[in-house]
Amino acid sequence: AIVDRIRSELSAETKLPPPEGARPLAGKRAVVTAGPTHEPIDPVRYIANRSSGRQGFAIAEALAALGADVTLVAGPVTLPAPRNVRRIDVESAREMRQAVEDALPADIAVMVAAVADWRVAEEAPTKLKKDGASLPPLTLAENPDILAELSMHDRRPRLVVGFAAETDNVVDHASAKLARKGCDWIVANDVSGDVMGGADNRVHLVTAGGVEDWPDLPKSEVARRLADRIAKECA
Amino acid sequence: AIVDRIRSELSAETKLPPPEGARPLAGKRAVVTAGPTHEPIDPVRYIANRSSGRQGFAIAEALAALGADVTLVAGPVTLPAPRNVRRIDVESAREMRQAVEDALPADIAVMVAAVADWRVAEEAPTKLKKDGASLPPLTLAENPDILAELSMHDRRPRLVVGFAAETDNVVDHASAKLARKGCDWIVANDVSGDVMGGADNRVHLVTAGGVEDWPDLPKSEVARRLADRIAKECA
Repeated sequence: AIVDRIRSELSAETKLPPPEGARPLAGKRAVVTAGPTHEPIDPVRYIANRSSGRQGFAIAEALAALGADVTLVAGPVTLPAPRNVRRIDVESAREMRQAVEDALPADIAVMVAAVADWRVAEEAPTKLKKDGASLPPLTLAENPDILAELSMHDRRPRLVVGFAAETDNVVDHASAKLARKGCDWIVANDVSGDVMGGADNRVHLVTAGGVEDWPDLPKSEVARRLADRIAKECA
Repeated sequence: AIVDRIRSELSAETKLPPPEGARPLAGKRAVVTAGPTHEPIDPVRYIANRSSGRQGFAIAEALAALGADVTLVAGPVTLPAPRNVRRIDVESAREMRQAVEDALPADIAVMVAAVADWRVAEEAPTKLKKDGASLPPLTLAENPDILAELSMHDRRPRLVVGFAAETDNVVDHASAKLARKGCDWIVANDVSGDVMGGADNRVHLVTAGGVEDWPDLPKSEVARRLADRIAKECA
């Protein structure tokens, strides 16, 4: 009987969820994108951006901590996967779009990845050679707009949150993006101080109801606040 | 006296170099470049390549192990610095050229970095915006050719070794590169099997005397063999 009691208590500690109030997103499915995308020029070269993936990884972790069933679609980053999160690794914007599509249906989408707006129109099958004075024409093509597509999708998640990294006119650009993309919220990230890749973020939460200015916060704290706001919205 | 003796033996263990035979490059200065370069498009985007920096870091470590005084000029990579190596971190090809210049005079130069052949002619001061159908013209400009410049430098190192990552006609391209750049050796790296970033390398050592085909080897072993060859050459 004592053994049974110990077994039962161990089980309670390791298996049972925390009190219901702490898991307001239990039963909800979330898809989060994070990191940069890499757009190939040829087999060795690519266009990239300075996203570290840390903010998106932190949000995936924070949503999972509130009980959500989280799929994290990650561009090329060196971060470890957060606990209790299903991680799908991708490289290009087109691969990311497919992975987000595959993660539907979902209740919540938080598109944090810095998806390349453009890819190289024709990826070279072999390494481009430097050939005297002539430079290769690097013709660009527009990438799929994952946030806009998701906002118009026939399986649109109930809450679609986009991110905007801006160096200038942060809130104006973010408000315009909210309207243009058709998403519900934009988290506008002021990267004018070279915050991308750093430990802290200064963000503004732009919704139909207005703009909230959050102070400089560690990315983990931005993630927790955002997850709490999402939990309230989806209650 | 016993304390002195212990102190002396500790000192012998920790301070004195190994036997002279094992340090054939003692007193020689080497400069090694490693990793990719990042060429900025705007404050958040850049052109990169798949070099992991591991081969260059291994060569810096192997040269230092043979007693050389090594400066390692590293592009943006996530690797820890090898022991007993002076590491200088750079981002763009132009920064790398300056750091190599600052490391002269040197007896040995091993240019392993995958230096971008091109940079974006005009880096945008603020993040480029997607603006309907119009795509930004990505005009490229040729980067400095660090290997060729070093081979013609008035303080040219006695031994200048270049690397060539090739996806096709590996030895032909490398032999042409040797003649074109004016360096002494080219280590031609066959990346057709997506070796860049991997643990092994298949290389061919191209010199005025001919071509040696080395088998598939771990990058650390390629480094040790090359350092041994360099030590013989500089004896």
